[in-house]
Amino acid sequence: MAQVYLTRRMHFNAAHRLHADTLDDKANERIYGPCNNPMGHGHNYELEITVRGEPDPVTGMVIDLKDLKAVVQREIIDRVDHKHLNHDVDFMKGVVPTAENIVIAFWNILKTSIPGAELVELVLYETPRNIVRYRGE
Amino acid sequence: MAQVYLTRRMHFNAAHRLHADTLDDKANERIYGPCNNPMGHGHNYELEITVRGEPDPVTGMVIDLKDLKAVVQREIIDRVDHKHLNHDVDFMKGVVPTAENIVIAFWNILKTSIPGAELVELVLYETPRNIVRYRGE
Amino acid sequence: MAQVYLTRRMHFNAAHRLHADTLDDKANERIYGPCNNPMGHGHNYELEITVRGEPDPVTGMVIDLKDLKAVVQREIIDRVDHKHLNHDVDFMKGVVPTAENIVIAFWNILKTSIPGAELVELVLYETPRNIVRYRGE
Amino acid sequence: MAQVYLTRRMHFNAAHRLHADTLDDKANERIYGPCNNPMGHGHNYELEITVRGEPDPVTGMVIDLKDLKAVVQREIIDRVDHKHLNHDVDFMKGVVPTAENIVIAFWNILKTSIPGAELVELVLYETPRNIVRYRGE
Amino acid sequence: MAQVYLTRRMHFNAAHRLHADTLDDKANERIYGPCNNPMGHGHNYELEITVRGEPDPVTGMVIDLKDLKAVVQREIIDRVDHKHLNHDVDFMKGVVPTAENIVIAFWNILKTSIPGAELVELVLYETPRNIVRYRGE
Amino acid sequence: MAQVYLTRRMHFNAAHRLHADTLDDKANERIYGPCNNPMGHGHNYELEITVRGEPDPVTGMVIDLKDLKAVVQREIIDRVDHKHLNHDVDFMKGVVPTAENIVIAFWNILKTSIPGAELVELVLYETPRNIVRYRGE
Repeated sequence: MAQVYLTRRMHFNAAHRLHADTLDDKANERIYGPCNNPMGHGHNYELEITVRGEPDPVTGMVIDLKDLKAVVQREIIDRVDHKHLNHDVDFMKGVVPTAENIVIAFWNILKTSIPGAELVELVLYETPRNIVRYRGE
Repeated sequence: MAQVYLTRRMHFNAAHRLHADTLDDKANERIYGPCNNPMGHGHNYELEITVRGEPDPVTGMVIDLKDLKAVVQREIIDRVDHKHLNHDVDFMKGVVPTAENIVIAFWNILKTSIPGAELVELVLYETPRNIVRYRGE
Repeated sequence: MAQVYLTRRMHFNAAHRLHADTLDDKANERIYGPCNNPMGHGHNYELEITVRGEPDPVTGMVIDLKDLKAVVQREIIDRVDHKHLNHDVDFMKGVVPTAENIVIAFWNILKTSIPGAELVELVLYETPRNIVRYRGE
Repeated sequence: MAQVYLTRRMHFNAAHRLHADTLDDKANERIYGPCNNPMGHGHNYELEITVRGEPDPVTGMVIDLKDLKAVVQREIIDRVDHKHLNHDVDFMKGVVPTAENIVIAFWNILKTSIPGAELVELVLYETPRNIVRYRGE
Repeated sequence: MAQVYLTRRMHFNAAHRLHADTLDDKANERIYGPCNNPMGHGHNYELEITVRGEPDPVTGMVIDLKDLKAVVQREIIDRVDHKHLNHDVDFMKGVVPTAENIVIAFWNILKTSIPGAELVELVLYETPRNIVRYRGE
Repeated sequence: MAQVYLTRRMHFNAAHRLHADTLDDKANERIYGPCNNPMGHGHNYELEITVRGEPDPVTGMVIDLKDLKAVVQREIIDRVDHKHLNHDVDFMKGVVPTAENIVIAFWNILKTSIPGAELVELVLYETPRNIVRYRGE
């Protein structure tokens, strides 16, 4: 009855601009600094998806990694890779694309999408030094 | 009375083949894909061993790192490094060498082997993108 | 009411010598080995600071990363970077500068210094293979 | 009279879109694929600047690293970091911002800007797996 | 007429055994040590392919990266990934699969396969610390 | 008659202080800044040793990696690891321990020490962002 955590690391490249429509330009510039640059900038994002479960006694796998990768590829990566998060991604409409808001949006999509294992954590690396994680708490 | 977590990262190179003896060849191929290749393939595994304890008030150490390294070297690394996990490793006999099953087997060996500190987590990187962790739960 | 964990990774270069004044030279050499070398040696330390909080509904940020960086820079990095931890750092006086003791000392400074978010974990990499973490437990 | 190569690694985050104005939309889409997405995408770029010279017999330095960093910061990083390379960067106007064209543009700026050492190579990592280098040949 | 170097990094997982058929068992064991283990061991290999050329004045590309990746995937990766190099790879038959011999074999395949750019270097990482490179010299 | 380059990456931890005895304190402070701190600071150095040679037609090896590692361990690593470069290392006496001077000193030791292969390059990482290389030119 061992509970094992399985993590898959995936990546995507995207542009974003930090700008809150509910704030005026001065406030946006003061809060977000260069991240408020009108045309946006971008990142090589890395995303770690962690699920937990008991390894199947026959196959020795918590979940078939091919299935996990296919779900995340279809539900997340294909919708954000080589995109501008402010303009091209339906589920980010009206949301400031901070790392915090991105990881919550990803969670809300993935929490019901992964068959046969429990999603327990998402970690999003905006850069190797700026990292957010969300556990659905 | 501070509880500090101390992690040592170690590595080994090994071959493995994913194959369940209780399944027929078709099922093995379907489930494991290229990982079922009869002669096996291999990885540069990285293993992180985390123990928890109170730093000794005199030495400032949770555990002498030399001791921790010696135990893991003798109990794990020397038995799997430059080996084929399906053929050469006694404690993996009859077990499909998925990352999940490997990390559980390592835990069962190490949980009673580390003197003076509590083993709390093992993390095994099969590749930089495929990672399992086990906490004895 | 989502609780998101935000981590910033920072670095500093420092020298240290492991030596307990309460032990004689023989015991120091036996316990610390080459780390007891009288003139010290050094490391490129990496420090990960993790805070937890609810993203602000307007800005989408747990905490302004500029503020977090400024606090850690002023309270920690400026006091240890390019320093010898045994000689130059007031808050390490009388403490053996093991990674365990360093991370506890950092915690005691930072736990009350970060405005608007809860400090939940510090991770200190002495090398990429020797890692300690402290959660104030 | 030793010739030593000194490399400094720096980074910037930027958005770009691969699109040649001299080609029609179909050709652009066929050639650049998802990199042609109208709103652009982005990267965490890493830039390695290598100079060569004889270490000064007194200081032991090919060049003062502070000077090298200041030049690259002012001439390159401040002009591209948190920018959209197609819209915000004067020296990229009219140039398709492929990694190849970016590294040549950087070279043309830096080749006459670094005092007291010879620029010999620039390496630009668009991602950890896509890398260009230019030596002014 | 700028000559730019373009590098793509790719990876594969394989098993191998170092064993020279022309030597007796004792000599093999003495020379190759644990790498001579009969059932083999394995690695996460990383391969860097570097081509050189003039960026196309219209597209700004030395070579279409999609084409470069497709060639290397078909000619190399598909033939060695998840394979045992001693048993499963036709072009390694009768060759001791040291990193040196692997990189030469790859070169001999790729030197005539890449359209529109000159292959100038292959770098093969057997581990992050054991690296070979070949330039066709 | 293929010429293959073989690189081994090794590491050591050391303290150093940048200070030229031929300069007064003001000049030292101005030139070296925080690196001139009297008690020194330190680094996790990484050293890449590259040799070139023809793979042996029987063994497939440019040089036995065990031999290369043993030479570098004995001639370099054992003399600098866990040491203070200004005080503990005989071959650095009277030399400012800049990365440039260190790599030249290493070269002068290794250029005649490696049996059966030609030393062609040393790369020394003081940090992941400050790198020097020397080719005996």
